[in-house]
Amino acid sequence: MKSKNIQYVADGGLLDRRAFFRGSAAFTAAMLAAPRVMSSPDVSKAKIGESHPTWMKIPGTNDMPYGLPSRYEKHVQRHLAEGAPETSLFSVWHSPIENQRGIITPSGLHFSVNHNGVPEIDPQKHELMIHGLVEKPLKFDMESLLRYPQVSNIYFLECAGNTASNAVSLNALDQNCQELFGQVSGSEWTGIPLKYLLQEAGLKSNAKWVIAEGADGGSHARSIPVEKLLDDAIIAIYQNGERLRPSQGYPMRLFVPGWEGNANVKWLHRLEVTDQPAFTKDESGLYSDILDNGKIQRFSFHMDVKSVITHPSGKQALPEKKGFYEISGLAWSGYGKIKKVEVSADGGKTWAEAQLDANVLPKSLTRFSIPWQWDGQPASLLSRATDEFGRVQPTRDVWRDKYASYSFNHYNAIQAWSVSRHGLVENSYV
Amino acid sequence: MKSKNIQYVADGGLLDRRAFFRGSAAFTAAMLAAPRVMSSPDVSKAKIGESHPTWMKIPGTNDMPYGLPSRYEKHVQRHLAEGAPETSLFSVWHSPIENQRGIITPSGLHFSVNHNGVPEIDPQKHELMIHGLVEKPLKFDMESLLRYPQVSNIYFLECAGNTASNAVSLNALDQNCQELFGQVSGSEWTGIPLKYLLQEAGLKSNAKWVIAEGADGGSHARSIPVEKLLDDAIIAIYQNGERLRPSQGYPMRLFVPGWEGNANVKWLHRLEVTDQPAFTKDESGLYSDILDNGKIQRFSFHMDVKSVITHPSGKQALPEKKGFYEISGLAWSGYGKIKKVEVSADGGKTWAEAQLDANVLPKSLTRFSIPWQWDGQPASLLSRATDEFGRVQPTRDVWRDKYASYSFNHYNAIQAWSVSRHGLVENSYV
Repeated sequence: MKSKNIQYVADGGLLDRRAFFRGSAAFTAAMLAAPRVMSSPDVSKAKIGESHPTWMKIPGTNDMPYGLPSRYEKHVQRHLAEGAPETSLFSVWHSPIENQRGIITPSGLHFSVNHNGVPEIDPQKHELMIHGLVEKPLKFDMESLLRYPQVSNIYFLECAGNTASNAVSLNALDQNCQELFGQVSGSEWTGIPLKYLLQEAGLKSNAKWVIAEGADGGSHARSIPVEKLLDDAIIAIYQNGERLRPSQGYPMRLFVPGWEGNANVKWLHRLEVTDQPAFTKDESGLYSDILDNGKIQRFSFHMDVKSVITHPSGKQALPEKKGFYEISGLAWSGYGKIKKVEVSADGGKTWAEAQLDANVLPKSLTRFSIPWQWDGQPASLLSRATDEFGRVQPTRDVWRDKYASYSFNHYNAIQAWSVSRHGLVENSYV
Repeated sequence: MKSKNIQYVADGGLLDRRAFFRGSAAFTAAMLAAPRVMSSPDVSKAKIGESHPTWMKIPGTNDMPYGLPSRYEKHVQRHLAEGAPETSLFSVWHSPIENQRGIITPSGLHFSVNHNGVPEIDPQKHELMIHGLVEKPLKFDMESLLRYPQVSNIYFLECAGNTASNAVSLNALDQNCQELFGQVSGSEWTGIPLKYLLQEAGLKSNAKWVIAEGADGGSHARSIPVEKLLDDAIIAIYQNGERLRPSQGYPMRLFVPGWEGNANVKWLHRLEVTDQPAFTKDESGLYSDILDNGKIQRFSFHMDVKSVITHPSGKQALPEKKGFYEISGLAWSGYGKIKKVEVSADGGKTWAEAQLDANVLPKSLTRFSIPWQWDGQPASLLSRATDEFGRVQPTRDVWRDKYASYSFNHYNAIQAWSVSRHGLVENSYV
């Protein structure tokens, strides 16, 4: 099965990731299935325009004040998660991450979870209050807030319920990457460090928690330890270079890097400093974890180390029965940087280290890839991420042993995609 | 004028950029103009909802399959450059960079220059040819091309004509930041390294140049030295995580990091390897530079080191007559990383080093900022960037001495914004 002179690094056809950089003749040979070799008449005809397509013969149209994707990309959309009708106030929109490359998610395709719909807020009338256990309660309008220094960082954001299907849904094996993993996205977030504002309000000595409340119809609220707000939390005003989109909290949201999406309170209008958490409905109910021993785990804020192969992934079909493919995917950890991602093409028997893309940033999506020479036989593709603190993804069985059978938040087990003899890729449990 | 205990680092009110991190009481005092201190009745009323805005009393709407900015941000748009009617085939759309924060430009607001309109290309029918001085001429459709490994990097892209107004336009002093600097943007670009494809085609020993041609109605073409294509050039397929927008070259463009926009041929369909440049109209005419001695400088590909303060910038008005502001801007160099940005608030007499944001990446926009305590007197704000190779921005006079009076490409002189006693910011030459 194996081609001569190609350097394999694990079973199942995983190739040395440096092969491309070495420019080895063997590797070039491995790829030959892809392009069509042109004959001389081919070239001449193309050059003199005999076969030129329509769009080379007519003038184009003008650009737009606010650009949009090509109409040929209309299929790349967010989809509502199963179950909820489009008229529901509670909605979960999944990002098509199998169509994403790189580590930035376009803001139009960022996942969104809305518990009471998306409010339409007039920024001129929006205010942010800081009160409670402070020396000096403060109220900011947009203009005064925008005079503060801002910082920008590229961070991932993930809903605690991302990939919950693999924990509890009976039809998870029939789901694609968007359905299973579409509640994680990556953006450049810009805003004002909370520490500047809390410092100005003056925290009292018994200040321990801050209750962050949104200005949506349901007054969504979460309690956040004050240490996090004094660390790297920001009042996010911009996402990917422009003001937040409405479903991301326009005109401002709390952003707590690496922590579960729900704690990043959107449409933020009130921060109440307290000495204890408020035990709001979302932190006592939906966003708590039920352990295997029946105990409830609250305030499990960090999103743990996790990864997924996005190319190829569930419900995709490999265009040919064998040959070269690039395996590519995303890894992230709410604790810090990704240190390594290992990939297996044989269901976890052998592993090889994938290449990480140029920008490995803390609490950010990290792109990994590894070349793969598929031999046309059934295969099982897995990825396993490790972060800089040595945290590593568990197997599905280990994850499920920790939690009650009906608990579904913070699922971060190793994902497996099976590849059939016919090239069909599907979710599988190994 | 100067407040007591505040640490100034240059005249005109520039403050120590570390002041915020030290949490100095003096610095907090400097900022007090901004928020309103609340009384206890204020707080109680807000908490019990007496003054809650409409959007907290009604359910919100649902999100969309492809999200858009808030309707309150409709004014943040690209604008057509002066002179060209909207029906023209040649159009230049300026990005509103004074509304951008961070280093990523939303794809919908990326600048665009189109010489023959924007073609609408069906990706299923689009092909890329590589021929000429190669062992094996090749033709790729999208499917075969997408099997190659891809890489992602955050790069700036700038038109050679960006800020040309300052060189040749009589009404430049009346222009805002978008009009003067709106032909530079930053994105995460993802695509296939050209070296893989050229290696597969097999370059002949006399291969020196590659003529890159677009599939637009005007067959836009540029000659690129083969060394650049074997270095960091890519066939870009994705921008900011999704397929290229039509006006950015959908379904594919040449991307030559750090080089003038026009050389990044959009709608790429043909790469002809040659032993000499083609001297196409754009490299012989519009995109050549006329030196002061009358000679023509062709193939000046690199965009040189440059910077601009975006906040505050031309035609903005400072909301109060004095007090604290953050000065923030963008710097970039087509040669590599930004090493430092110096800012002056007194027209260039004294300078202080600004803080660079977390991600200082090669050939990328780099965000800088410095705190400023404005004393309410006329001021003159300048930024001066230096890259890792020691290249530094010239003054406007030095720049103009090098070129003929009617030459306008590659303008990279130090930008000055004047601030009037009334807080009005305007373009100025110092």
